[in-house]
Order: sequence, then structure tokens, then C-alpha cells
Amino acid sequence: MEDRLIETVFARHSADGEQVLIGPGDDAAMLRCPPGEQLLITTDTLNEGVHFPAGTPAHSIGHRALAVSLSDLAAMAARPLWAVVTLSVPAVDEDWLREFSDGLYSLSDEIGVRIVGGDFVRGPLSITVTAHGSARKAAVLRRGGGSEGDGIWVSGFLGDAAGGLEVMKQRPEAKAETRSSAEEALVRRFCYPQPRIRLGAQLGGLASACMDLSDGLMMDLPRLLRHSQVQGRIAVENVPVSGALREFAGRDDAYQLALAGGDDYELCFAVPPENEHRLKSLPGEPELTRIGELYPGEGLVLTRGGSAWEPMDFGFRHF
Amino acid sequence: MEDRLIETVFARHSADGEQVLIGPGDDAAMLRCPPGEQLLITTDTLNEGVHFPAGTPAHSIGHRALAVSLSDLAAMAARPLWAVVTLSVPAVDEDWLREFSDGLYSLSDEIGVRIVGGDFVRGPLSITVTAHGSARKAAVLRRGGGSEGDGIWVSGFLGDAAGGLEVMKQRPEAKAETRSSAEEALVRRFCYPQPRIRLGAQLGGLASACMDLSDGLMMDLPRLLRHSQVQGRIAVENVPVSGALREFAGRDDAYQLALAGGDDYELCFAVPPENEHRLKSLPGEPELTRIGELYPGEGLVLTRGGSAWEPMDFGFRHF
Repeated sequence: MEDRLIETVFARHSADGEQVLIGPGDDAAMLRCPPGEQLLITTDTLNEGVHFPAGTPAHSIGHRALAVSLSDLAAMAARPLWAVVTLSVPAVDEDWLREFSDGLYSLSDEIGVRIVGGDFVRGPLSITVTAHGSARKAAVLRRGGGSEGDGIWVSGFLGDAAGGLEVMKQRPEAKAETRSSAEEALVRRFCYPQPRIRLGAQLGGLASACMDLSDGLMMDLPRLLRHSQVQGRIAVENVPVSGALREFAGRDDAYQLALAGGDDYELCFAVPPENEHRLKSLPGEPELTRIGELYPGEGLVLTRGGSAWEPMDFGFRHF
Repeated sequence: MEDRLIETVFARHSADGEQVLIGPGDDAAMLRCPPGEQLLITTDTLNEGVHFPAGTPAHSIGHRALAVSLSDLAAMAARPLWAVVTLSVPAVDEDWLREFSDGLYSLSDEIGVRIVGGDFVRGPLSITVTAHGSARKAAVLRRGGGSEGDGIWVSGFLGDAAGGLEVMKQRPEAKAETRSSAEEALVRRFCYPQPRIRLGAQLGGLASACMDLSDGLMMDLPRLLRHSQVQGRIAVENVPVSGALREFAGRDDAYQLALAGGDDYELCFAVPPENEHRLKSLPGEPELTRIGELYPGEGLVLTRGGSAWEPMDFGFRHF
């Protein structure tokens, strides 16, 4: 039973004789590291009721669990290669597993990541993905590296995923058809985050520091600032907020969600002034927005309309 | 808060400039793959109440979570290099975390594995370890590869861990001092499995197939047989059973536990006749025992005193 299910969920990809020498089904997978490049490894756990609400569609959970780890690779400008996946479920529901697996593999096929192994166990619903990528050492982006005078930039719109989570929590039983198109757009942003792999790779030669936004700008940006040993100053009105989020939450709450809400998996990065003009011409990428600048000192300073500003909440707390 | 705790639990090892170019604290770890070798990757999740009982000491949980993944590397004759660890806990208890971390790092330091990253989240108690090792392609042991006429061998004693789990379940509140020395020995075997890294490496040139015993001989050996496309015949009285297990369970139940109980993390392997004499002289290893032989056909055949034999239970079921 278990072996057959493992094949459904974790073994749609098999060895390819190139990089994947042994795929799922043995005690470990065997891989060939790309010569001349370094290996990047990141791991994330998503628990039901903590990282996604009960009732989140299985297809989204499969997508999201992989996307979250790939987003870390994107933030370091790495090329994704392989992932291993562990899945805990309270009971076996084959339809659910197939949907989960469809979500997982449709993203992995789109990005070109191979699922090379996993573990399938009983327990409260939880997924851990360990993703592996590669990059030349000199091209890797880190959280440290930002300097005084660099612009602070973000990709896409912030707060959409937090808005989508609000929609799901307010009306957990609601079907997609009963949601407004703004609500549905936000829910999709929570359920199907897009890891910014291509953008990360393009930033490799342009940005001085980079990270992904998982816990929200107010929680994450201070980490980049601390690693870079600089102060960040942001004008709140510059933070990119989508029309859908404004429609759902109103203008003021939209900014709260954009600053304090997590789960967007956009990139936040610092760019030296001499490189900023090159950001205008990145083809095929989400909008990039300059939201502030790095200064000597430490910590994050927010202004709105020129005055100091405090948001009401500070993003996803792990505990 | 979270960042500081992550440092306690996951960041005792930092970059070493050799293989670990970026350690914990960035979006991903950056590693240098050993040139001329392949990378082996394995991942396992342990859930409280499923893989270990509530009340298992934190120190043991830290040890065991790493040992379980290292055991998979041992089974493939790989040299362990790095691990990433995700930990879900329902609430923050710093003493518990320190003990967990002590257990994790004392094994990793003993084996020489570096913890290069992790994730620390809220949720039901659960640990996932993804372990990485390396090996020359030709030296890697697989589940397939066993042939007719090869001996079936196991390391150490089987059933001890299942006996230890029984002790823990029968009297969950019992302190070590109140247990008999046999009981305490069994509990230690459950709580502190020793991944057979060195043995696996030595078997690299001797065995034709290998796997580790996590779910129990009756569940695991058929997987090796299926991969190798052979039948296995075992004389139950040859299965190595410890004095402690015999004392605790009695002779008949000891064999049941040795065949059907999981969690021993010993190696089970096939050895061609011409190599068997070389197994006698492996220095510093646990006892190795020949328990049977491979034949043409399929499936596992058990005999006891020359007659067909069926155990009462078939090992750890994932569901």
C-alpha cells in the first residue's frame, strides 16, 4: 500500500541518466552536481492551521509547498535542480493525494525541478520540501551586501497573499464562484505563489543583496538590513499595492497588509545607484518598484507623507 | 525571538570556507560538492505519536531524527556530509530545545555531519531531516543487485528497538532507574539508534545489495528482494536476537519482535559467496549474521526448524 502510494505522490519523475542517477525508490537519491557550480540547499515546513488554513485545496498545497522552497533559491539567484518532499497526512485519501501530487508536479515541471525522493507518513497534515539548486559562486545573492545609497526594491505587489488568506478565513466554505473577482485574485495569490526564479537569476549581476518575502516586509526587510549592517528608510506610499487588494481592504488596510502580511514570496533587494537604470528593462518580469533607500545606521524607518509611521501589526509570527 | 532560537537550534555550525560556503542564516546554504563523487540525498519525517511516543526525551528525538536519515546514507555506502533540519513544536520551551539540539549536534559531531540550515515552525511535534552524502558512483550500494546464491546478512541484533518501544509504552512514566538493565538497554536502542556509516562504507566493495531496516525485516527485506528480482529464504532461528530482548520478551516473542519490529536501523545486505569470508574480518563493527540466502523466484519464505513459519504481525505500518 505505502509503496504504491509513494509511487503516485513522489515518483512521477525517475532517473534520467544525466543528473538524476538514482531517483525515488532506493534508500537515497543519487545526483550529479553541475561541474563548476556550487550547490544551494533550503528546507521549509508547512503545517495545516499554521501556514495554510484547513480546507485549502490539495492542489494548492502541493504547489505552495514547492513554491516556498523554490522562492529561497530564487532569492539567491540559483538555478533550481531537484527537490525531496515529505508528506504527513492523518489518513489516506487517494483523491486528495492525486490532487496534491498534480499541484506539486505541475509547478515542478513548469520550473524544471525534479522530485527525486520523499517520505510519506501518518500524522497531522504537514509538508516539508528540501530544494536544491546550483549557481556559480560569484553570482549568488546574499542578504548581506547592501550599502549606503543603494535603492530598496521589491517585485510585484505586496499584501495580496495576506488579503487572500483573509478571504479564505472569513468565509472558509465559500466557493470560488461566490467570491468577487478581486477576492478570487487575492486567494489565487495566496494559493499559487510564483517563485521569482528568472528574476532572481537576472538580479545576480545587478543587486547587492536579496531575500524573499515570506514573513512580510516588516519582518523580513530588517533581516536584510541586519546582514548588510545598514539602515533602511521606506516611504509607505511607494509600497506597491494591487487594485484587487485596495478594493478588498480599502486603502489604509491595504498598506497594513502590504507591510505586515506574509506569504507573497516576492523578492526584496538592494540595488546600487549605477545599476538602477538597468532594472527598467528586465523582460517578462513583474513590475519592480523602488520603495526606499539604504542609509548608514541600523533598523527600518517608515514614513508616510513625510512623517514617521507605525503599522498596526508586524507580520507572521512563527510562535 | 525566532531568529535567536533558530541560532540555538540550527546554527551551532557555521560556514567553514571549505565545503560549507554559506551556512545557516541566509535564504539557502551554499555547499561545495566533493569533486569526482556523486551526491546522495535522503529525507525522513518523524512525528510524535507515530514514530516516537509522547514523552520521548528531547535529547533522543534530536539524535534519532538525524540517525534515521544517516542510516539511509549508510545503506548506500555514502559518506555523510551535511543535513538540514526542520522542527515543528507546539510551543517554545527553551530547555526542551536545548536538549533536542544537544542530541542532534552530539551525533552530527560524532559522525562529522554539518547542520547547514533549517526551519523552525509552530505545529504538532515533528522533525524532518534531509541528509546529504557523497560517494563514487561505482561504490554505491543499491537495493537491486542481489543474485541467486548470495547470502542474506544483517548487522547487530534485531528487535531490540521494538522491545524498547514496548517498554516505553507499557510504563511511559517510568524513570530509567526503575527499569531492569535489560529494559534500559532496549530503551536505549530505540532512543539512540547508531547509523552504520562505517559498516556501509566497508560493504561498498563486498555486498551486492543493501538497505537499512527501518520498518522491520518482514517489511523491508521484501523491498530488497523485489528490487533484486529474487526470492529470499530465511531460517528464523538464525535471526540474531539479543540476550536483553530474550529476557524482556521471552524467546518466542523475541523472534516476533526481531522479524516484525521496526526502528533498529541495522543494515540488511546480500553478499556473493566469494566475498562472504571477508565479512568475518571487518574491524570494529557490530556482529554480522548470515540469516538466509537468495533463490530464483520472488517473495520471502520463512522457516523455523525446517518448517514454514508465519509471524503474527508485519512490522510498522505507515497507515
